Amino acid sequence: MPENKIPYKIYLKENEIPSKWYNVRADMKNKPAPLLNPATLKPMTAEELAPVFCDELIAQELNDTDAYIDIPEEIQDFYKMYRPSPLIRAYFLEKALDTPAKIYYKFEGNNTSGSHKLNSAIAQAYYAKKQGLKGVTTETGAGQWGTALSMACSYFGLDCKVYMVKVSYEQKPFRREVMRTYGASVTPSPSETTQIGRKILAEHPGTTGSLGCAISEAVEVAVGTEGYRYVLGSVLNQVLLHQSVIGLEAKAALDKYGVKPDVIIGCAGGGSNLGGLIAPFMGEKLRGEADYRIIAVEPASCPSFTRGKFAYDFCDTGMVCPLAKMYTLGSGFIPSANHAGGLRYHGMSSTLSQLYHDGFMEATSVEQTSVFQAAEQFARVEGILPAPESSHAIRVAIDEALKCKETGEEKTILFGLTGTGYFDMVAYEKYNDGVMTDYIPTDEDLAKGFAGLPKVDL
Amino acid sequence: MPENKIPYKIYLKENEIPSKWYNVRADMKNKPAPLLNPATLKPMTAEELAPVFCDELIAQELNDTDAYIDIPEEIQDFYKMYRPSPLIRAYFLEKALDTPAKIYYKFEGNNTSGSHKLNSAIAQAYYAKKQGLKGVTTETGAGQWGTALSMACSYFGLDCKVYMVKVSYEQKPFRREVMRTYGASVTPSPSETTQIGRKILAEHPGTTGSLGCAISEAVEVAVGTEGYRYVLGSVLNQVLLHQSVIGLEAKAALDKYGVKPDVIIGCAGGGSNLGGLIAPFMGEKLRGEADYRIIAVEPASCPSFTRGKFAYDFCDTGMVCPLAKMYTLGSGFIPSANHAGGLRYHGMSSTLSQLYHDGFMEATSVEQTSVFQAAEQFARVEGILPAPESSHAIRVAIDEALKCKETGEEKTILFGLTGTGYFDMVAYEKYNDGVMTDYIPTDEDLAKGFAGLPKVDL
Repeated sequence: MPENKIPYKIYLKENEIPSKWYNVRADMKNKPAPLLNPATLKPMTAEELAPVFCDELIAQELNDTDAYIDIPEEIQDFYKMYRPSPLIRAYFLEKALDTPAKIYYKFEGNNTSGSHKLNSAIAQAYYAKKQGLKGVTTETGAGQWGTALSMACSYFGLDCKVYMVKVSYEQKPFRREVMRTYGASVTPSPSETTQIGRKILAEHPGTTGSLGCAISEAVEVAVGTEGYRYVLGSVLNQVLLHQSVIGLEAKAALDKYGVKPDVIIGCAGGGSNLGGLIAPFMGEKLRGEADYRIIAVEPASCPSFTRGKFAYDFCDTGMVCPLAKMYTLGSGFIPSANHAGGLRYHGMSSTLSQLYHDGFMEATSVEQTSVFQAAEQFARVEGILPAPESSHAIRVAIDEALKCKETGEEKTILFGLTGTGYFDMVAYEKYNDGVMTDYIPTDEDLAKGFAGLPKVDL
Repeated sequence: MPENKIPYKIYLKENEIPSKWYNVRADMKNKPAPLLNPATLKPMTAEELAPVFCDELIAQELNDTDAYIDIPEEIQDFYKMYRPSPLIRAYFLEKALDTPAKIYYKFEGNNTSGSHKLNSAIAQAYYAKKQGLKGVTTETGAGQWGTALSMACSYFGLDCKVYMVKVSYEQKPFRREVMRTYGASVTPSPSETTQIGRKILAEHPGTTGSLGCAISEAVEVAVGTEGYRYVLGSVLNQVLLHQSVIGLEAKAALDKYGVKPDVIIGCAGGGSNLGGLIAPFMGEKLRGEADYRIIAVEPASCPSFTRGKFAYDFCDTGMVCPLAKMYTLGSGFIPSANHAGGLRYHGMSSTLSQLYHDGFMEATSVEQTSVFQAAEQFARVEGILPAPESSHAIRVAIDEALKCKETGEEKTILFGLTGTGYFDMVAYEKYNDGVMTDYIPTDEDLAKGFAGLPKVDL
């Protein structure tokens, strides 16, 4: 390891865990477009959202003016269980790549949910408990959000009903057991337990499910059950708010050593990790205080940013949720069955969509075999087996570092390592056996999804 | 969380990672008995051990006089990848138990091997590389050691052949994929690839395997292949030496806050974790500088300490390895098929056996349903899903804390949380489904194992 004052892992102290979340919308000139009531096409009011979401979370969802929001003490206490998360200087990866680039990653996988999702899960469970609810419903794709929420609900004594995308339920049987160990009930989606599930099963008997469909089921159950609300692990403004703890910690750790990143890279499915990681950096960029190159990385098989349309769309397949303006492939879009892991949502955070639309960030897409190649290389030198989702960011970080090798530039790269891949070994097995495939949707495939976009004329 | 100066997680700084291992044998008046050559019944010489083990590791194995041994810089560098590991104050568990006890645990699971095994794996791989070897062979039970070794070998570019106990190979298919991702080859044991494997399969066609049998296969391949040696993840003196990094860090972290444990608890299979955790504390006890109550916890289904004999025995089922004097159930002992996870070795570290024999530590055994009950309780309040092995220590730590609740004593308890349970979800599923069973071997069961003990008259 080179002589350097910067340690391999930078840990903040426990009293340096942020006490406020940062709300990037407060600094956006063009605010993200509001959620619309699908019946009236008018912006959803807090009252209209109340049957679905917890009251305090609705307030956070609609708040685009306060830059900082206090983190309740109970949540700060829980954060101490697994935060601050380390900011790691990738000395071993730099050496393996023989690059002059300086690579850092914020590692959010050192908790049992295996990802950053716990940051928002504990917040949402806290507000549900505070409101006196009995329980919450949700969907999960790769299983990280469901696991995180089951941990959070167990902590506050809330019931937790998880609808898990069927393909993940089958690929990741052990995820289900972790959730059950934390007391959650887990149902593969689409299921026979809801009207929308039965409808989708009737129309598509062999479907492997989608996040959009699981959302519809979870919302139906929440709205129809006394004392329950629905919670979501990505896409929403409130989630990006909670996840800002990632970026705030990362920035504080870098600031300690006077390091300023040139490039910030995050994987993007619904945007929870990317939005959280970049939050304070984007804030500086929006306020004109600093400039950063910010790159969203998405799977070529589910390319919302790079090939989607910026339009109002349903957040769910069942079209029961409000409309959001976002980069979307259409709520009927389902990634091909060979797509492993998460990052399979048809849409994207409205906040990130607006920022991308306004030119504050870039987006790129990568194919999954090249993602797993990067994952394997990273695992072997850095000692952490990454989640497939996180490995999208690794792929682009490595590519950027290799460009530096060619040009000789000593760029500082920061990327988000959102989680670990311990529950993704079916996908790793395919890669190890050399039978993993890539799939890029054709323009015709995408046209089918776009055809389902609602006609909204504002 | 209570107001307290002691944080939830105590992290040492990277430059506080120990630069020397501590060799408890140097402070033992009664040294552990030497390994014997099974042919001559004389102590094994370095020359006799050389075909099996790496030279430098043999020197460490036989060294019972030097109290401190330098950790080579290359190993210290690797340690920085995942060490220092946190010492965690179990505030949440204390609150849940409503106990006046103060509970600390040293958590070794925050690395991809999922356990403390990496501490010795990287040392053994380093010395193999330094000797110019092509590769190493080993066995693995629960899979933690095999994963750790595959990571270490990948780092140093060594070939790694792992013989995995068949029951674990079947219960933990994903462990195999992690090892393959790190480039190792994994064979279920007993296998057709070795003489001893074929013999055992012929005699016991339906066997689910045992550590002792997998050791025989790995040793046979190492001895018979040019440029290979055999490495072992537990039991040996050298392993306890490397694992002393656990106890040294734990003690340094406690010393920072002026905390002295009253009770130290560790799970015990072959003794690697327990021996490492207690090392510096035992040193003080041996030198008369301090007193600690030290408790080894083993499964009731594999009770080497509590029901075994202190005698010379073969380290492996095939009886090709040297004899060690230890608490043993006989090299033919195989735990019942319902036993989940590791801690399934028939014997026990010679060093720990001698210390136990001389009254420096206690031992107790626990049944697995009560272990999983403790695991679930711990996971829900502390946010870490523990390995079944580690949960043996959790069980006894909780029991000790509950005793303090009755007596009002404010004892300080330290236990070793050796790893995470992400690859043990088949066992958790059984517990969640209420179909996990206990099994305590009868005296007749044990008598069969004892009947196979070699006749050694010294």
